[in-house]
Amino acid sequence: MKPLLIRQVLHDGREVDVLIEGHRFARLAPGIEAPGAEVIDGRGQAIMPPFYNAHGHAAMTLFRGFADDIELFPWLEKHIWPAEARLTPEDVACATRLAIVEMIRGGTVFFNDMYWEPATVARVADEMGMRAAVGRLFIEARPGVVRPACQRQSEELEAVAPRLSDRLQVTYAPHAIYTVSGLVLRRIADQARDTGQRIHIHAAETVAECEACRAEHGMSPIAWLDACGLLGPRTILAHAVHLTDADIALIRERQAVVAHMPVSNAKLGSGRFRFASVVEQAGCRTTLGTDGCASNNNLSMLGEMKCAALSAKLEAGSTVAGQAHMVLDCATRNGAEAFGIDAGVIAPGKLADALLIDLDHPAMTPNYHLVSNLVYSADTSVIRTVICHGRVLMRDRVIPGEAEIVGAMRETARKYAPLALR
Amino acid sequence: MKPLLIRQVLHDGREVDVLIEGHRFARLAPGIEAPGAEVIDGRGQAIMPPFYNAHGHAAMTLFRGFADDIELFPWLEKHIWPAEARLTPEDVACATRLAIVEMIRGGTVFFNDMYWEPATVARVADEMGMRAAVGRLFIEARPGVVRPACQRQSEELEAVAPRLSDRLQVTYAPHAIYTVSGLVLRRIADQARDTGQRIHIHAAETVAECEACRAEHGMSPIAWLDACGLLGPRTILAHAVHLTDADIALIRERQAVVAHMPVSNAKLGSGRFRFASVVEQAGCRTTLGTDGCASNNNLSMLGEMKCAALSAKLEAGSTVAGQAHMVLDCATRNGAEAFGIDAGVIAPGKLADALLIDLDHPAMTPNYHLVSNLVYSADTSVIRTVICHGRVLMRDRVIPGEAEIVGAMRETARKYAPLALR
Repeated sequence: MKPLLIRQVLHDGREVDVLIEGHRFARLAPGIEAPGAEVIDGRGQAIMPPFYNAHGHAAMTLFRGFADDIELFPWLEKHIWPAEARLTPEDVACATRLAIVEMIRGGTVFFNDMYWEPATVARVADEMGMRAAVGRLFIEARPGVVRPACQRQSEELEAVAPRLSDRLQVTYAPHAIYTVSGLVLRRIADQARDTGQRIHIHAAETVAECEACRAEHGMSPIAWLDACGLLGPRTILAHAVHLTDADIALIRERQAVVAHMPVSNAKLGSGRFRFASVVEQAGCRTTLGTDGCASNNNLSMLGEMKCAALSAKLEAGSTVAGQAHMVLDCATRNGAEAFGIDAGVIAPGKLADALLIDLDHPAMTPNYHLVSNLVYSADTSVIRTVICHGRVLMRDRVIPGEAEIVGAMRETARKYAPLALR
Repeated sequence: MKPLLIRQVLHDGREVDVLIEGHRFARLAPGIEAPGAEVIDGRGQAIMPPFYNAHGHAAMTLFRGFADDIELFPWLEKHIWPAEARLTPEDVACATRLAIVEMIRGGTVFFNDMYWEPATVARVADEMGMRAAVGRLFIEARPGVVRPACQRQSEELEAVAPRLSDRLQVTYAPHAIYTVSGLVLRRIADQARDTGQRIHIHAAETVAECEACRAEHGMSPIAWLDACGLLGPRTILAHAVHLTDADIALIRERQAVVAHMPVSNAKLGSGRFRFASVVEQAGCRTTLGTDGCASNNNLSMLGEMKCAALSAKLEAGSTVAGQAHMVLDCATRNGAEAFGIDAGVIAPGKLADALLIDLDHPAMTPNYHLVSNLVYSADTSVIRTVICHGRVLMRDRVIPGEAEIVGAMRETARKYAPLALR
């Protein structure tokens, strides 16, 4: 791989050249000479860390706009479940490819995934140059017994994993406390301790989940996960909308990671995440994610950041809550750190993940405060170039193969259209 | 002006040609012959009504990201007011041009404006081919006496108005009930009855405003406006966040227009608009707006629609509230109708305002439900072409003169940078 030299790009307010050698940033300085390097003209652009999407279901891009604005149960029973029953590995590959194209356009280089056919998801992510954490999905047929499809697909993922690059990692992905019993949760906790792999679970997402947990176990979902030995620094708690003060203290003590999904929480009417309490007061390790396209319906971390900042202000009743730089940290460096990726900061020695942002875009003008502009004003149209692991995934808004991937998705969607809401 | 022929574009799910003659749609049908027409290739695109931005302060684009995430009073006293004290008509022209470029990129062809130097705003909007309603700003020096600057600037607007195209209209824009006394409000109500011009006012935006109104007048802001004779079918109530059931009934009875600004309401922590009650249950005439860039910080009606739908669901605690088609109506046809613009629908005889949407964009794929995709998934990058009053303002994402307008804004902003939050 040739070195990559980005010339005259803005970094922290000053113009520098950025040299990438192999997978890492080598130097940031004005006037770097690097004969033989591939050169990108960075003039009129800022270099920024890219986004790390901490929770989602990439292949659900297949269900974008499939059945919106209806009640949860008709949605699941008439639309989503019958559609998912038709899913083939080829369909998952097709939808994951489109999701990755969309994520790259939006400046995302990593996604933490929980879905069917994880071996396929991992393979596609690897092929397309992305980073990903892909979960072995656990849903039970009955207490203590994981569904055979999950079991089989987890084994497929295990078989594929050793052949993948180190941009990919495998996680344990027990779906939720209401689909996985304490028996299996405890087993996963033990295994994760041995393998060092991360755990990824939906937690405290809805009032119903919290009430059922209290009724069954006499404690909150977070306390129950802790009782099952599942709460630790390598555990990703997706949503965590309904947290008590004791829950927040426990998450902080165990150094567990919260993945916040404000758009999905609003679209599904789940409730309001306590951003000011969790992030600003308790300092819990907090990341940001988009969730899947059935409940968002896009994969833009820029949109998610704005929603996170706005939701935080409404929830706290204060303009000071949800500050732009904190939200940006959740979407970038916190995400990288939570998944053990030595990136999320533009600095020599770090893995070379980066975005080039178009400063000549109307929405980025004036530029009094780049972070404010990114969080509150930008959309995906400001992102020109995306670099992951030292490799250019999008250059000047062009992603090789995009038209074919969009076309294939349109074909695949035909099969599912009869189940969509009319 | 040559006729305009858009070939093979999707309209309501079928492929048609669209012929525009003069300022209006002439025909929609397959295979239209129109020798001498300017032709736009509409393949892979959908034609949709554009957006009508029902409330804002366009020139505040100058204060994008100027001082975010701080308390209201330091914000006003240390940053916004001192900056506004330096405003020249040239600066307002420069900032309004950039705002219009941004609005066009986002598919907006009309904005309802309330700001300093309205004559300049009207002239710039007219020159750039936009539609606008521009307000004579009323703020009092003391009860009953309008500030001399407002008086002078209103007279300038009156002088300019007769020379402008019929895309422009003048409104009365009393700032709010806490800056304009009942005396002046009643005078405006009388004048508006005589002239037939619209009234545009901030109303029931914050808890503080409602409490002060109750303390002073013994009634809600909406009831007070009605008592002043100001509540009618040509009155635009900006924000209307804090409404009682009686307020909603009164707004409905008077057929007044609500302009909903969900992003601003969240960013300023003003509170949650009762979308389900106002729009879905009472059927009040409701429009959507972006507010200004100091409290949004962009002018994207797509972003505003998503926020409106999500806020409605959270406020009502229901996934069924804030349905995509209702939100889209607020942003399009309701806006046109509220301002007496015979547009907002793609149909023969209607004024030719339209967007061409890129259906090959990843975020618009699959396309089970175009309206859902627009409201929940799209951002400005899906908009390719914008037509207003039969004239193309943006074609294939190119707006003539954009680079110069962005460059001029960057220069103008230098003067204000010392007052921005560091």
